[in-house]
Amino acid sequence: MSGYVRDLARRARAASHVIAKLDAPRRGAMLEAMANAVEQGSSDILSANAHDMARAEKAGTTGAMLDRLRLDEGRVADIVAAIREIGELPDPVGEVTRSQAMPNGLKVEKVRIPLGLIAMIYEARPNVTADAAALCLRAGNAVLLRGGSEARDSNIAIAACLHRALREQGLPPEAVTLVEDTAREHVLELLQLTDLIDLAIPRGGEKLIHFVAENARVPVIKHYKGVCHLYVDKAADLDLALQLAIDGKLSRPGVCNALETMLVHGDVAAEWLPGALKDLQSRGAEIRGCKRTRELFPDASLATDEDYDREFLAPVLAVKVVDSIDDALAHIQRFTSDHTEVIVSRDTDAVDRFIREIRSSAVVVNASSRFNDGGQLGLGAEIGISTTRLHAYGPMGLESLTIERYVVRGEGQVRHPDVVAAQG
Amino acid sequence: MSGYVRDLARRARAASHVIAKLDAPRRGAMLEAMANAVEQGSSDILSANAHDMARAEKAGTTGAMLDRLRLDEGRVADIVAAIREIGELPDPVGEVTRSQAMPNGLKVEKVRIPLGLIAMIYEARPNVTADAAALCLRAGNAVLLRGGSEARDSNIAIAACLHRALREQGLPPEAVTLVEDTAREHVLELLQLTDLIDLAIPRGGEKLIHFVAENARVPVIKHYKGVCHLYVDKAADLDLALQLAIDGKLSRPGVCNALETMLVHGDVAAEWLPGALKDLQSRGAEIRGCKRTRELFPDASLATDEDYDREFLAPVLAVKVVDSIDDALAHIQRFTSDHTEVIVSRDTDAVDRFIREIRSSAVVVNASSRFNDGGQLGLGAEIGISTTRLHAYGPMGLESLTIERYVVRGEGQVRHPDVVAAQG
Repeated sequence: MSGYVRDLARRARAASHVIAKLDAPRRGAMLEAMANAVEQGSSDILSANAHDMARAEKAGTTGAMLDRLRLDEGRVADIVAAIREIGELPDPVGEVTRSQAMPNGLKVEKVRIPLGLIAMIYEARPNVTADAAALCLRAGNAVLLRGGSEARDSNIAIAACLHRALREQGLPPEAVTLVEDTAREHVLELLQLTDLIDLAIPRGGEKLIHFVAENARVPVIKHYKGVCHLYVDKAADLDLALQLAIDGKLSRPGVCNALETMLVHGDVAAEWLPGALKDLQSRGAEIRGCKRTRELFPDASLATDEDYDREFLAPVLAVKVVDSIDDALAHIQRFTSDHTEVIVSRDTDAVDRFIREIRSSAVVVNASSRFNDGGQLGLGAEIGISTTRLHAYGPMGLESLTIERYVVRGEGQVRHPDVVAAQG
Repeated sequence: MSGYVRDLARRARAASHVIAKLDAPRRGAMLEAMANAVEQGSSDILSANAHDMARAEKAGTTGAMLDRLRLDEGRVADIVAAIREIGELPDPVGEVTRSQAMPNGLKVEKVRIPLGLIAMIYEARPNVTADAAALCLRAGNAVLLRGGSEARDSNIAIAACLHRALREQGLPPEAVTLVEDTAREHVLELLQLTDLIDLAIPRGGEKLIHFVAENARVPVIKHYKGVCHLYVDKAADLDLALQLAIDGKLSRPGVCNALETMLVHGDVAAEWLPGALKDLQSRGAEIRGCKRTRELFPDASLATDEDYDREFLAPVLAVKVVDSIDDALAHIQRFTSDHTEVIVSRDTDAVDRFIREIRSSAVVVNASSRFNDGGQLGLGAEIGISTTRLHAYGPMGLESLTIERYVVRGEGQVRHPDVVAAQG
């Protein structure tokens, strides 16, 4: 370990104490300054991004990867708007979440405070640099950012704007610290800094998440793949089921809350499945099905267990006919990624059972899996969707970047008055 | 890795699904059966404990360690009473913590569900076996218990009672799984089981916690040492300050919420410190102080930085005279264990600042540090006091053994109606 990241983290942690102490208006002003600085630095950011793009093209990068890296005036304006929006969200810090007067007169409160120093480890999207910084600082934290090497110049340019804003506000620029040297060994070092980093959040592909989970000593909240299921019950409104399948699978196949697998009750399969799959196919979906599915819809190729375990990130749908809700629940329990599962049913017993037995971050009844998203669920903005069943599960908003602690007010209460009263 | 613990954990995890699905009355009946079974098994437990005690004495164990291991009829009755109390606590599972109707008609709720499988890693106290099992199962989880080798026979006897209760209720006994083979390598294996264990909670001495923290791949919430501070402000009620020092340091010096360090504002030190320290000394406290303390109270030995960093677990108090609240805050920031810090002051500005700048799990104003305890703060029972600023911070009650997830109810809402409306 070179100590390079430890040094950065130590300074970021010192800055976290300054940010944590700010009152709400000052944190608001800080966010506004951050938005303005990115707005004013737009041309610098775009020319840095042009360098990243040129390097990536030269290296043979194409398609979705290149698109993720690209910034233009519209996308920079989106970044600025996102920071402003985050600045206007309700302030989680200082919120009293419980208040109780104890029989001995103690007043006990649980109050939200910032976590401290949060490390974000992500890939090619440069907008994450600004988003993560805005969310972390809005909740009173400092942030250590380690973006992908492809976006290095863009990230440096964005961080420079944020530093300018912090300096302008009389605040330590180290509250937003970018790990500029993107060598893999520095990520390893970062993941060992248990005395400095309160939480690491990896965002990106499976490989990155695995690498972080395998090597971290610091606490990690994973934002992992979504193998989302749609269960079409025998008591389903079948028109509605088709709409949810189309929206879930085809409105944006590359995201984690897209559908991957549809489970269909045997009682409605013969009636519904042929037409539904034909419709999905005509809209560009590729169907992979179990034997019974293929009997009803011969165009489907045979689905393997691997298919049922995959996030396709493409318009591919795995389909299985099940004999009962029990079979559907057993399939989900086996293949779930703890992300999002949907039931379509008019039967309240089936719905209640589905809710009770599924432990995923979101259970959705008669609506699209695509709603498992911070904005759609009323959080305003999200730093990701946690599939770790600890601290935060599902979309992580500002609250998830804080922790509740106790504030106890008394008037001299002691636990053992007898000990105190005894003569010394 | 032998696979011994993986096998145990796999069965415990399967059992966790059964426990998670129980409704509240059935979980209540389960707890009652557990209490009854321990009550009826009292003599078996006591004779098993006699074996543990004999082995420990033969091995030269004495004092506090031996006392922690010892059970008698009264202590078994306490265990039974504790299980009953836990059974009567408000049920956290199913609690709706947020409810919101979105503009598109979606009804969004956050609802508590169990974490899943919790691993407890602890030392000599056999009562933890029953306590941890009762708390985890009450919150709908299964538990994997790895107690100390000293208490092996006692733990097996207690677990046997709990298994009898679970079988009686038609529930899988694996919901309470004891790792009977206490070889260290099995703890190592346990700490790698990221696909089976949702949370590991180590409770015990610094060595144990370090071992777990260093080796865990599963999420860990630490219950670490408490280096608790009492800051006596210049605006303190000085009689009250002395009472809080006596209660904090001397009512039970061996526990984590006992005081270790007292910081005294220079403006009141000359007036108050000599008498206060004399009183504390006459009650059996050993005083270690800074130079200024020793000028005022020559009986004190010189405190080193190591003393300020220690949990004495003994009637030893480190004392330091500070020039200002700033100095007190800086000292705490340097040496805090994130456990409990107390301010004694009538000055609301000083109190507000202390609360704002301290990030420990509990800030206590004009009351004893000894109140940072689940029972005292209204949680009913606790599985420990977390010093990890994630998921749970401070005393961990039943709520901390659950997680909030989303339940979303709709009537066919889709995210992209345009995509759905387009012809296939």
